[in-house]
Amino acid sequence: MSLSKAKIKLIRSLDQKKYRKEHQLFVAEGPKLVDELIGYFNCKLLVATQDWIQEHSNYHTEELILATQDELSKASALKTPQQVIALFEQPQYEIDNKAMQHSLCLALDGVQDPGNLGTIIRLADWFGIEHIYCSQDTVDIYNTKTIQATMGGLARVKIHYTSLTEIIKQNPNIPIYGTFLDGENIYDKQLEQKGLIIMGNEGKGISDELQELVSHKLYIPNYPMNKESAESLNVAIATAIVCSEFRRQASI
Amino acid sequence: MSLSKAKIKLIRSLDQKKYRKEHQLFVAEGPKLVDELIGYFNCKLLVATQDWIQEHSNYHTEELILATQDELSKASALKTPQQVIALFEQPQYEIDNKAMQHSLCLALDGVQDPGNLGTIIRLADWFGIEHIYCSQDTVDIYNTKTIQATMGGLARVKIHYTSLTEIIKQNPNIPIYGTFLDGENIYDKQLEQKGLIIMGNEGKGISDELQELVSHKLYIPNYPMNKESAESLNVAIATAIVCSEFRRQASI
Repeated sequence: MSLSKAKIKLIRSLDQKKYRKEHQLFVAEGPKLVDELIGYFNCKLLVATQDWIQEHSNYHTEELILATQDELSKASALKTPQQVIALFEQPQYEIDNKAMQHSLCLALDGVQDPGNLGTIIRLADWFGIEHIYCSQDTVDIYNTKTIQATMGGLARVKIHYTSLTEIIKQNPNIPIYGTFLDGENIYDKQLEQKGLIIMGNEGKGISDELQELVSHKLYIPNYPMNKESAESLNVAIATAIVCSEFRRQASI
Repeated sequence: MSLSKAKIKLIRSLDQKKYRKEHQLFVAEGPKLVDELIGYFNCKLLVATQDWIQEHSNYHTEELILATQDELSKASALKTPQQVIALFEQPQYEIDNKAMQHSLCLALDGVQDPGNLGTIIRLADWFGIEHIYCSQDTVDIYNTKTIQATMGGLARVKIHYTSLTEIIKQNPNIPIYGTFLDGENIYDKQLEQKGLIIMGNEGKGISDELQELVSHKLYIPNYPMNKESAESLNVAIATAIVCSEFRRQASI
C-alpha cells in the first residue's frame, strides 16, 4: 500500500495543535527517535522506507506503509527526512501531584519555545526528573519541534499541564525553588533532593503570582561575579545548570 | 527614503552564507539585540519603524531607512519582525591564539545547529569566556538564527574559525578538556581556570584526531548514576554544565 494523499494530509495537519488535539496523536521522525518511543507509546501508523523495514523486525504498529524517500519527504516536517515517520497516540495518565514530596520535580511557567521545552525534557531525563508540571500557557509538548528535541526523553518523563499555583498549594511545606537575579548563590546554598524547581518564561521570567510562592530564591552567578554585561541565560541552559547543581550536591 | 526592492533583496540574501561572505555583513533584528550590538559593530544600514527611531537618538549608522511594519516584514527573516533590522559589518580581528594559557577558552568541533552555536556564545558571555575557537566545519557564526540566539553575546565573545589541531599544538602543556562517556566525574575532578574545553558535533561528538589531544576526559554524571536509559545531552546544555562547574570551583 502506498502513501495516499489523505495520509500525507493527516500527517502534515499534525503540525497544528488543533489537529493534534482532535486526533489525540503526535508525530515523531527519524530512526533514532522512533526506536526510542515505539516501545512506550501506542503506534497508529508507521511510514517507512524499505531500508528501515529491513533493519527492524520487532515492533508493533496498527498500520505500516512502505514509502519511497520522495513520498516520505512530502509527509515530513523536517528539511532532511530520515527513513521513518511515526504517528503515536498521546498517552493518557494521571500525574502524581504529590511527587515533589519525595522527589525533585520541575515546573515550567509559560515557556514558549518548542525547542526549549524539548531540550528541558531531554535534560530532565538525564538528571532523573520524572515529573514536569507546565502552566496552561506553556507551549504544547506534542509540537513536532518539541518532540524532535526531546530525543526520546518523552518516554520516561511525564508532563502535565495544570495550574502551578494549585499544585503548589496542594503541597504545603515543600521547598519551592526558582531562579532570580537577587537570589542566593546556588553554589553556596544547600539544596534538597525533593521539591519543585520553577523555571519562567523566556522574556518575562516567573509570573508575579508564582514568585510569591517560591520559598528559596536561587541565583546562577556569572563570571567574573557581578559583572553587568551579560544579562541572562536561555531558560533551557539555566534549567540544566540548576539541575546539575542539585544532583552534584546529592553526590557529595 | 522608503525601503527599495533592492534593499529588501540584499537583506534577504544575507540568509545565505555565500552572500554574507561576499558582502562581509550580517543581520540582527529586534530592538533588544540591535541595542546590544550597535555600539560594538559598524552599522551599515538600519531599517526601522517610526517608533524605534523616536525612542533612539544616540546611535551611528551609515544609512537609515524609515519603514512601515509591512515593509519591515518583507525584509525580515523572523515570523514576528520587531521595529528594527540592522546590517552590521563583520568584524575583522586577530584572535589571541595563546589566550588559553591564562584563561578558560572553548573549542567547538563541528557544531552544526545555528541555535546551539548562538546559545553557546550567550552562555560563554555569562561565564566570562572570551574566546571560542571553531573548527572550519562548524556552522557559520553569522547565520541569522545564530545571531538571534546570542542575545548580544557576540559583542563580547570573540569567535575564530581555525584548525583546532593547530591551535592546540601551539599551546603545549595546557590542559585540554573534553566530555566523554568514559571520562572522570566532573564534580570530583579539580578543574583549572585556564586551558581549552572542546565540545563536539551534535551526533558524532569529538573527532578522533582531536580526542587524542584531550588531556582531561570529563563526564557529566546522570542521575541516578549509571542508569542506562537517557543517552545524551544537547551540546549547548553540556557546555553550560561544564562551564558552570569550572566557575563554581573558581568560587570555592
